[in-house]
Amino acid sequence: MSGVGIWFVGARGSVATTTTVGLLAIRSRLAGHTGMVSELPEVAAAGLASLDGVVIGGHEVAEGTLGKRAEELSAGGVFPPALATVLAGDLAAADERIRPGVVAGHGTQRAAADRVEAELRAFRDEHGLDRVVVVDVSSTEPPVGGDEPALATLEALEAALDAGEAPLPGSSLYAYAAFRAGCPYVAFTPSPGPRVPALLALALDNGVPWAGSDAKTGETLVKTVLGPMFAMRALKVRSWSSVNLLGGGDGQTLADPTNAASKIATKANGLESILGHPVDGPLHIDYVPDLGDWKTAWDLVSFEGFLGTRMTMQFTWSGCDSSLAAPLVLDLVRLVARAHELGAAGPVEEFGFFFKDPAGSDVHALSAQWAALADWCARAGQGSL
Amino acid sequence: MSGVGIWFVGARGSVATTTTVGLLAIRSRLAGHTGMVSELPEVAAAGLASLDGVVIGGHEVAEGTLGKRAEELSAGGVFPPALATVLAGDLAAADERIRPGVVAGHGTQRAAADRVEAELRAFRDEHGLDRVVVVDVSSTEPPVGGDEPALATLEALEAALDAGEAPLPGSSLYAYAAFRAGCPYVAFTPSPGPRVPALLALALDNGVPWAGSDAKTGETLVKTVLGPMFAMRALKVRSWSSVNLLGGGDGQTLADPTNAASKIATKANGLESILGHPVDGPLHIDYVPDLGDWKTAWDLVSFEGFLGTRMTMQFTWSGCDSSLAAPLVLDLVRLVARAHELGAAGPVEEFGFFFKDPAGSDVHALSAQWAALADWCARAGQGSL
Amino acid sequence: MSGVGIWFVGARGSVATTTTVGLLAIRSRLAGHTGMVSELPEVAAAGLASLDGVVIGGHEVAEGTLGKRAEELSAGGVFPPALATVLAGDLAAADERIRPGVVAGHGTQRAAADRVEAELRAFRDEHGLDRVVVVDVSSTEPPVGGDEPALATLEALEAALDAGEAPLPGSSLYAYAAFRAGCPYVAFTPSPGPRVPALLALALDNGVPWAGSDAKTGETLVKTVLGPMFAMRALKVRSWSSVNLLGGGDGQTLADPTNAASKIATKANGLESILGHPVDGPLHIDYVPDLGDWKTAWDLVSFEGFLGTRMTMQFTWSGCDSSLAAPLVLDLVRLVARAHELGAAGPVEEFGFFFKDPAGSDVHALSAQWAALADWCARAGQGSL
Amino acid sequence: MSGVGIWFVGARGSVATTTTVGLLAIRSRLAGHTGMVSELPEVAAAGLASLDGVVIGGHEVAEGTLGKRAEELSAGGVFPPALATVLAGDLAAADERIRPGVVAGHGTQRAAADRVEAELRAFRDEHGLDRVVVVDVSSTEPPVGGDEPALATLEALEAALDAGEAPLPGSSLYAYAAFRAGCPYVAFTPSPGPRVPALLALALDNGVPWAGSDAKTGETLVKTVLGPMFAMRALKVRSWSSVNLLGGGDGQTLADPTNAASKIATKANGLESILGHPVDGPLHIDYVPDLGDWKTAWDLVSFEGFLGTRMTMQFTWSGCDSSLAAPLVLDLVRLVARAHELGAAGPVEEFGFFFKDPAGSDVHALSAQWAALADWCARAGQGSL
Repeated sequence: MSGVGIWFVGARGSVATTTTVGLLAIRSRLAGHTGMVSELPEVAAAGLASLDGVVIGGHEVAEGTLGKRAEELSAGGVFPPALATVLAGDLAAADERIRPGVVAGHGTQRAAADRVEAELRAFRDEHGLDRVVVVDVSSTEPPVGGDEPALATLEALEAALDAGEAPLPGSSLYAYAAFRAGCPYVAFTPSPGPRVPALLALALDNGVPWAGSDAKTGETLVKTVLGPMFAMRALKVRSWSSVNLLGGGDGQTLADPTNAASKIATKANGLESILGHPVDGPLHIDYVPDLGDWKTAWDLVSFEGFLGTRMTMQFTWSGCDSSLAAPLVLDLVRLVARAHELGAAGPVEEFGFFFKDPAGSDVHALSAQWAALADWCARAGQGSL
Repeated sequence: MSGVGIWFVGARGSVATTTTVGLLAIRSRLAGHTGMVSELPEVAAAGLASLDGVVIGGHEVAEGTLGKRAEELSAGGVFPPALATVLAGDLAAADERIRPGVVAGHGTQRAAADRVEAELRAFRDEHGLDRVVVVDVSSTEPPVGGDEPALATLEALEAALDAGEAPLPGSSLYAYAAFRAGCPYVAFTPSPGPRVPALLALALDNGVPWAGSDAKTGETLVKTVLGPMFAMRALKVRSWSSVNLLGGGDGQTLADPTNAASKIATKANGLESILGHPVDGPLHIDYVPDLGDWKTAWDLVSFEGFLGTRMTMQFTWSGCDSSLAAPLVLDLVRLVARAHELGAAGPVEEFGFFFKDPAGSDVHALSAQWAALADWCARAGQGSL
Repeated sequence: MSGVGIWFVGARGSVATTTTVGLLAIRSRLAGHTGMVSELPEVAAAGLASLDGVVIGGHEVAEGTLGKRAEELSAGGVFPPALATVLAGDLAAADERIRPGVVAGHGTQRAAADRVEAELRAFRDEHGLDRVVVVDVSSTEPPVGGDEPALATLEALEAALDAGEAPLPGSSLYAYAAFRAGCPYVAFTPSPGPRVPALLALALDNGVPWAGSDAKTGETLVKTVLGPMFAMRALKVRSWSSVNLLGGGDGQTLADPTNAASKIATKANGLESILGHPVDGPLHIDYVPDLGDWKTAWDLVSFEGFLGTRMTMQFTWSGCDSSLAAPLVLDLVRLVARAHELGAAGPVEEFGFFFKDPAGSDVHALSAQWAALADWCARAGQGSL
Repeated sequence: MSGVGIWFVGARGSVATTTTVGLLAIRSRLAGHTGMVSELPEVAAAGLASLDGVVIGGHEVAEGTLGKRAEELSAGGVFPPALATVLAGDLAAADERIRPGVVAGHGTQRAAADRVEAELRAFRDEHGLDRVVVVDVSSTEPPVGGDEPALATLEALEAALDAGEAPLPGSSLYAYAAFRAGCPYVAFTPSPGPRVPALLALALDNGVPWAGSDAKTGETLVKTVLGPMFAMRALKVRSWSSVNLLGGGDGQTLADPTNAASKIATKANGLESILGHPVDGPLHIDYVPDLGDWKTAWDLVSFEGFLGTRMTMQFTWSGCDSSLAAPLVLDLVRLVARAHELGAAGPVEEFGFFFKDPAGSDVHALSAQWAALADWCARAGQGSL
C-alpha cells in the first residue's frame, strides 16, 4: 500500500506537532520506532503502509506555526531541541498545508462541512494519495446528550443542516465531512466525533472505517493491566482512587468540568467493566500549569485478600502525553488505512487496544485487546478480514 | 473428586498456618473465597475437589503449636484474631497430625526418606484419602550447583543414598519421598525440591504430577503484567529497580545472601524473558523485622518512548505475603490433585500462572499464563488433558 | 496542679473515644505515652497536670455508647481490640457522664447555651475539679461570613440571643457557654468556635485561655517541615498538589464541599505563609468509605533549583487520624489548663505548634512553633508567663 | 570583601563544572540565584563576597575539557544546553586554569604536596586574590582507619612525608597543601580530607578555617527535617529504609562498596542522632547508569503512634545532584572566605547546615542548623565572631 495522507483536526496542537516531527525524524533516520506498536511483528504483519510516503496536512484554529510549536515542545522536554532545528524546513513545508479550522458560529455548518470536505478531496487529489485519514487531536469537547433528534438519523441530520441549523459538535462536523469525502477517521480524543447515530450510519453507508475513541496513553493504560491482575487473582478491589495532574493545553481544556466530563466518563468505564462491579474512589483531573507537557498520575488501590486481609498498591506515572500519543497516531493511521484498503466500514472493534472507550467493543483488558488486534493483523496480512 | 490430603513441609510456618486457618474458616462458613483462583469460573471448570473433605497434616522442625502460630499471625494482622480463637479446637486437632521434620545430619538421608515416605502412606491410608499433595512451604534453601553427579540421574541418586551419602537438598529429600509414595507435589518456594534431574525422572517414572516453583504473590506478580504492557506498547524499559522489605520468617531466611540467591534469580528471570533483553537495575530483598508479616515493595521503572523521551513509573506494593500465598496453596492442591486424577505426570506447565519460575515453561506474562491455565481447566473439565 | 476535667463536644466521636480509651489505658498502665508531646521534657517542664486525676464528660448528639464506638474503632485498627474489652467497665462509667448535645432548631440558642453552661458548672462541681477544659471534636462546620452583625460584638451577640435569634454556629454556641462558665477551650477542628469577634472579646473579659484551631495531624504536619526546608535551601516551589483520601466520619462530613471549605482554607494557608508566595496546585479531600479510620495523603511538589533545573518530591502518608489526634487532645488539655492556672486569657499563640490555623499567630513552620512552645513551657515551669 | 578564588579538586567533575557554568551564567545575568542559600537575607547578612570577582581554577586527573563536560551535563538535563553554548568561550578560559591532578604513586607525596601548594600560591598571586578556597569535589574515597600513626600528629605526618612515605589519602594531601598555603578548605564529599588528626592541628596552627563534610543535597536533607518532626511529635520511628538510585560519576564510584562505606556511614549517623536511638532498616546506594545525573531516592518510614498504632510514610525524591550541589559550593566558598577574613580557624561548626557529617558538631536537625548559621552570619555581619 502507498500514498497515505494524514489530515489533522488540530494540526498545530501538541499531539499533531509531535507526530509531525516524529514522522519527519523517522523518515530522515534521525529517530527510531520506539513507542510505535505498528512496528512490532504481530502488528506489522497486517501489511501496513510505509511511513516514507505519508503526507501531512490539517485544519487548525490557532495562530502560530508548526516550527514555533515544535520549539516550545522541545523546550518542554517532549523531544530533543536539535530535532526542531534540523527539521525546521520540513516543518515549514508541512505548515503550508494547514488550512484554517472551522470556527463555531462563522457561517452555517452546512457551508463549513462542504468546505472541509472539499479541502480533504483537494488534499488527496493534489498529492495523488490513495487515501487520507482524518485524525481528531483537537481540544476535548463536552459530551452530547443522547437524545438530540437532529443527530438521531442521517436523514434528520441532513435536514437540519439544510435548514441552516448547527446540530453537530465541532468534532462531529469533521467526521461528517470526512465520511462524505470517503476518508477513514481516528477519534483520538473523547469528543463525540463519529459516535453520534447519524454518523455511525453515514460511515457504514459510505464504506468508511474508523477507530476510537480517547487514546489510552498513561494512567488508564496501567489500569487496564492492573485491573485484570486483581481479577485473575480473585482479589477484591475495594476502592481505586486516581489523580491526574497535567499542565499542557489538554490540561487547560480539562480544567473546565464540562469538558472533563467526557474524559472522566471514559476513564472510569473500563475499570468497572474489567472488575465486573462498581468501584469506589475519586477520579480527579487537575490542571497544574507548572507541569507543562508532562503528566503525573497517582493511583491508590485498596484491595482485600484471603480472610478479609486489607492491602494496598499505589503507583505514580510520570509521562509525557504528547510523546506517548504521537506514535499511536501513526499506528492508527496505518491500521485504519489498511482497514479501508481491505474494505472495512464502521468502527473497527479490534483497534480497541488503543482506546479508553473502544468503539464497538466492551473489552478493556489490555492483553485481550492485544490478542484481538494481533488476530486482526494476521487476517489483514492474508488480505481478508 | 473427593478425599484429598495436604501434607505440608513446614506445617507450622506462616503460609501453612494461614492456609490451615483459612481452610477451616471456609469450611465453617466463617470466611469466603476471596483470593482463591480455583473459585473463578474458568478454573473451577476443571472439576476440582471440594474443600470440605480436605485433611491437613505435615512435617515441621520448629517447636510450638498451630494454635500459637495462629495467634501470632492474627496479632500481626494476617487474619482477624477472632478466627484463631474460634478455630482453636480444630487447629489443635490439625496439630496432632504434624510429625517431626527431617533434621540434616540426624541419620542417613536414606533412612529419613524412608521415614517420610512411610508417614505419607500412613496419612493417606489412615484418612482413606484418594491422594495426598505434598506442599513445600518451608524456608528457602540456596540453589544447588547444576553439576552434582549424584543428582544427575535417578540411578546415581539411588546409589548415593544406598552408600549412606547425603546428596539431596532438604526440599529435594521431601520431593523424593513424595514421588516414591505416589504423591503429587507443589514447590511453593524457590528451593530446589523436584527440580533436580534425578527427581524429574522419578516423577515421570512414577506417574506423579507436580507444580512449581516459587509462587508469585506480590511484586513479581505486578511485574508480569506491567512488563508485557511496556512490551505491547513498544516502550523501551531502560532500568527496573526493585526493593523488597519484609519482616517475617521468610525475610530472616532471605537476609542470608546465600538463601536469597534462589529468590533473586527467579524474580529477575521473568522480566527479562518478557521484555526480551537484559534490564539494568538492582533487586534488593531486605529483612526489616519491624514490618512483621507484611511486605512493602517499591519498584522504579525508567523507560523510553517516542523520539527518545524518558519517562518513569513507580509503584509501592504493601501486601501480606502469607495472606496472598495461602489461597494459592489451596488452588494448587486442588489443581495438582485433579492433574493426578487425570493421569498427568511431571511438571504441569499450565500451572505456571502461579509461579515466578514456572517449571516446564518460559512463559511469564500473566495474561498468557492465565489463558494457558483456563485452557487446561476446560480440558480437565471434559476429563481429558 | 490537680483536678482537671475534659468536656468533649462530640464525646462519642472517633477522636473523643480514642482519647478516652487512651487516657484510661495509660492510667491502667496498659499503654505508654507514645505520641504525647506533653511527655517530652521540653513540654513537661511547664508543670502539667497528671493524667491520673483527669475526669472525662461531654455532649453528644449521636446515639450509641462509648463502648460500642471503641469496639468499632478497634476493629478498624485504631487501637488493639483487647483495650476495648479490658476497659469496657470504665468506658461505661464515662458514658454515664455524657449529656445530650445541642440540636439546632430545638429551642432557642439562649436556652441551649444556658443549659450547656449549667452542665459544665455541674460537672466541675460534682467532681470537685479545679477546672474543666472544653474540647470541640465534633463534625466540621462550614466557615461563617465575616460580616454577621450579631457576631461582631459581645453586646450585639447578647442582644440577638435575648431576642430569641440563633446567630451562633453550633461550635460557637459551645464556646460561648464554656467562656461564660469560665472554662478554657480547645478548638480542635476548623469550625468557627471561639473565632468570632464577640467570643474573642468574651474570652478576654472572662479571663479564659483557649487554643486553636484545626489540629495538624498528618499531611499538613509534613508540609510544615518540608515547606521550610525548601525555603531554607532557596529552592523555588512551583506547585504543590495534595490529595487526602479518608473514610471515617470526618471524611463523610468533608465530602460536603461546604464543610470542606473550612478545612481546605486552613490547610492551604500555612504553606503560602511559609514560602512567602502563592503556590499552584489542587488540594483535594475525598471521602472513600472503604478506608475507614485511616487516611492516605499523597503530595507532589514540583520545585526549581539552580539554573532553572526542575525536580520533584512526592510523599505518601498513611496514618490513622484518630490515633494521631488523641494524644494531642491530652497535650492541649494539660497545656490550656496550665495556662488557665497561670492566668492567661484569650488565644495562646504559643500553642500554634498543634494547629493548621494557629489562633493569634502567623507562624506555620513546625520548628519555629516548637521553639515558641518550648519557650512558653519553660516560662510556665517558673510560674510566670 | 573582594578577590576570592575557588580551586577545585576535581575541576572537571559534574559538581565543579555545574558550579563553573552557574557562576559564569549568574555573572552574565543569564541565570538567577535559585538554590543559593547565601542570597537569602539571613545569610547574606554576613557580608559575603560578590560573585562578580570570583576566579575559578583547579586540579583534575581526567582528560577532557570543561566545555565538553558542560555539553554532556546539559544533554543530561542538568542545565539548559543554551548555557553551554553561550558560555563556551568563558569555559575554555577557565579550562586553561586547570592543572593536572595528583596521581597516586607518581612521585612522593612530599613532592606532590609541594607542587600543589606552589600552584595554589601561584594562582592566588597571579590573579591578585585575597584568598583562595580549595573545594574538594572529587570522587569519594574509602574511610581511613583511625589508628594510622603517621596521621595521628602533625609531627608524625611531616616525618613520614620526609621519609618518602605516602600516608595521606588523596583528599588529605590536598587539604595538607591547602592549609600550608593558607587556603580555607571545603570538604564537599565524605572523603577524609582535613578530618585526620594531623590536619586538624595544621589548620589551627596556620589559622585556616574549613567546612565539611559531605554536603547534604537530597534524601538526607529531607531526613533532617522529617526526623525532627517525628521526634517533636513523640512518634516512635521503628524503621527507616532508604534506597538511593543514581547514575552519574558519583554513582559509579559508590558502586564500589569500599567507597560507599564513607557515604553510608555519614548518611546514617544523622538520623540516629536526631531520634536518639538506633533505627532499623537498610540504606542502599545503587548505581543505575541509565539514570544519568539524576538521583531517585525512596524512603519508607514505619512509625508507631498512640496506643501502639502502626503507620507509615514514604517519599520519593527525584533530584539532580549536581544542580543541588553547585549553589551550595558557591555558598560555602563565600562563607568560608568570610570566616577566613574574620580570622576563624579550624572547622566552622555553624556551617553544619550544609553537611551530612558536620565537622565540629553533632547537630543534624536542619532547623537547628539553620538557626546556628543565621546567628553566625549576624555576628559576621557585625565583623566579630
